[in-house]
Amino acid sequence: MANPSLLILPGDGIGPEVMAEVRRIIDWYGEKRGIVFDVEEGLVGGASYDAHGTPLTDETMARAQEVDAVLLGAVGGPKYDVLDFSVKPERGLLRLRKEMDLFSNLRPAQCFDALADFSSLKRDVVAGLDIMIVRELTSGVYFGEPRGIHMEGNERVGINTQRYTESEIARVARSAFELARKRGNKVCSMEKANVMESGILWRDVVTEIHEKEYSDVELSHMYADAGAMQLCRWPKQFDVIVTDNLFGDLLSDAAAMLTGSLGMLPSASLGLPMANGRPKALYEPVHGSAPDIAGQGKANPIACILSFAMALRYSFGQVDEADRLEKAVDATLAAGARTADLLGPEGGTPISTAEMGTAILGAL
Amino acid sequence: MANPSLLILPGDGIGPEVMAEVRRIIDWYGEKRGIVFDVEEGLVGGASYDAHGTPLTDETMARAQEVDAVLLGAVGGPKYDVLDFSVKPERGLLRLRKEMDLFSNLRPAQCFDALADFSSLKRDVVAGLDIMIVRELTSGVYFGEPRGIHMEGNERVGINTQRYTESEIARVARSAFELARKRGNKVCSMEKANVMESGILWRDVVTEIHEKEYSDVELSHMYADAGAMQLCRWPKQFDVIVTDNLFGDLLSDAAAMLTGSLGMLPSASLGLPMANGRPKALYEPVHGSAPDIAGQGKANPIACILSFAMALRYSFGQVDEADRLEKAVDATLAAGARTADLLGPEGGTPISTAEMGTAILGAL
Ligand SMILES: CC(C)[C@H](C(=O)O)[C@@H](O)C(=O)O
Ligand SMILES: CC(C)[C@H](C(=O)O)[C@@H](O)C(=O)O
Repeated sequence: MANPSLLILPGDGIGPEVMAEVRRIIDWYGEKRGIVFDVEEGLVGGASYDAHGTPLTDETMARAQEVDAVLLGAVGGPKYDVLDFSVKPERGLLRLRKEMDLFSNLRPAQCFDALADFSSLKRDVVAGLDIMIVRELTSGVYFGEPRGIHMEGNERVGINTQRYTESEIARVARSAFELARKRGNKVCSMEKANVMESGILWRDVVTEIHEKEYSDVELSHMYADAGAMQLCRWPKQFDVIVTDNLFGDLLSDAAAMLTGSLGMLPSASLGLPMANGRPKALYEPVHGSAPDIAGQGKANPIACILSFAMALRYSFGQVDEADRLEKAVDATLAAGARTADLLGPEGGTPISTAEMGTAILGAL
Repeated sequence: MANPSLLILPGDGIGPEVMAEVRRIIDWYGEKRGIVFDVEEGLVGGASYDAHGTPLTDETMARAQEVDAVLLGAVGGPKYDVLDFSVKPERGLLRLRKEMDLFSNLRPAQCFDALADFSSLKRDVVAGLDIMIVRELTSGVYFGEPRGIHMEGNERVGINTQRYTESEIARVARSAFELARKRGNKVCSMEKANVMESGILWRDVVTEIHEKEYSDVELSHMYADAGAMQLCRWPKQFDVIVTDNLFGDLLSDAAAMLTGSLGMLPSASLGLPMANGRPKALYEPVHGSAPDIAGQGKANPIACILSFAMALRYSFGQVDEADRLEKAVDATLAAGARTADLLGPEGGTPISTAEMGTAILGAL
């Protein structure tokens, strides 16, 4: 059987640095565990724009559709702020999500024990935290038409459209319920049904799917503003949260912060099964391209490494190996290894991106 | 000269209970300070629906346009979940905001010293916190057309429209810059200009107004997801935040939580000046109707009382009296008075809504 294939798109800013550490982990799996991947690299975001005048070429898009999984670093940077909206770095990422139809974006917010004191929240609020945000990723206001800026009389008007179909809501709801069954068996769905009709449809469809197919799972509903508040107040009340593209963007970033550092959090974006049974999949850290520290070897590679662990788990059925890698990260942190983002006000000496990679390899 | 006029709309759930304490404060100002208001009461939300079949009658709407300021308690409750969207309790509040054209919603997030240990965030993260979120309140996805649920083929589709005009953005930006000049002189504007064209227009217009009229104020821009994260990480980096209706809804609730309890936070919604020079204005607590504790005398009246303090400040130019009332609340908390929402895991004996009102009157 052919080796599983990976397309690596390091992207912009700290993307290439953190991805370099993932490459070392991938190599380790090939050498030590006999799990060999066919790896190819490509460009996305500003890096692709610089080379080809577009944030994603058709060739790279086609390869992303063919491989078993895509690993992405990060896109964007102030250098590209002046670009037209249609060629901004983010459009490359959004095109991948949309054309691969990656409707289910899994964003775990887990608090590593070694970092529980590092959060801006109190230890007892976050220690042992383990929630999963399932964000719809291919629809909503990110993609709805009409959109754009036009003139009305003598002033500009900016428009975007929040649009959800029943089937779009149903499929992401199902993926949340499936996940919940393997976890705490609880789903909280968030929208603004008190203000938005799209939120009413969201709530209705989630409720229907629940009644018909997942009545064994506990379901609750919360307005997204109350959700943002409850995430800050007592996040452990949640198990799985399912929400739309835009609310998911904000809520998952807030949840990420609870765990201490955005440099820790991975994500998986999953679509429909391919012919080989694996889901279409893209894995990326939740953090951005962090242009302020790019190229300085300061970035924390853990979010990107844990994204690869999610690939082992969700694309390649290597659950034990995913556990192994996550435990290695845990042990590395417990041993005191800290990149700059993981140092509190007390300070301490940070290690570099590559040193963190080396430490995790050591723990493996 | 006629007394200033107030329209009081207690609304649903805990609204009437907390408003009863505000009435006592208003009476105190009349008796002890010679500041007499002409007060009338009306119905809004579910209470109005129960009496009149609509969450706001045209008569009450007309009175709201005529008085000097409206004080609102809270709207909504599970009893009304089954109602058609067009007559839900929230529509009454949204109609007031829209028809009074209350475009600038001021939501201060201040951490009272006596409560700094009560937040889910660490003391040093929140102690002394004093930020002001300025939320656009009359446009965006709350009001944009087209909207609704319709059939496409054999499935339902839910649609809402995010729509901002240049002038809508400009006027709320101005109000944020004006406030900043009286505070820390810093504004951070939040949107998703990397994904939404309406966010690009938002950023452009805020930047233009800044350059032309407020270049003395420090302006920064942040994506709303990063904003949610930074609010949880280090909120003291902010002075004034200006953002749209929907982002403002989520971000202000998250910010509210930082301060320990939603039961503490007031808001002012301001529009254009009326003939008498006062702005159209509605004051309401940030918290909701809390149906779970309604009618039990457990609710914290402070958010509603502080909303009246904002009325003294922004509608009636009684800055010293507003300070006096805020200091009375401060002193009451410092003396240890706690409603149930303000008791931490250590517990303690809560006082009732009315006892908190009495304590604050005592401190006055
Ligand atoms: C980079 C940007 C387009 C993206 C988003 O808004 O979805 C990011 O914030 C994320 O959460 O993955
Ligand atoms: C009650 C509801 C309509 C309202 C809103 O969404 O604006 C509330 O959440 C608020 O923040 O004032």
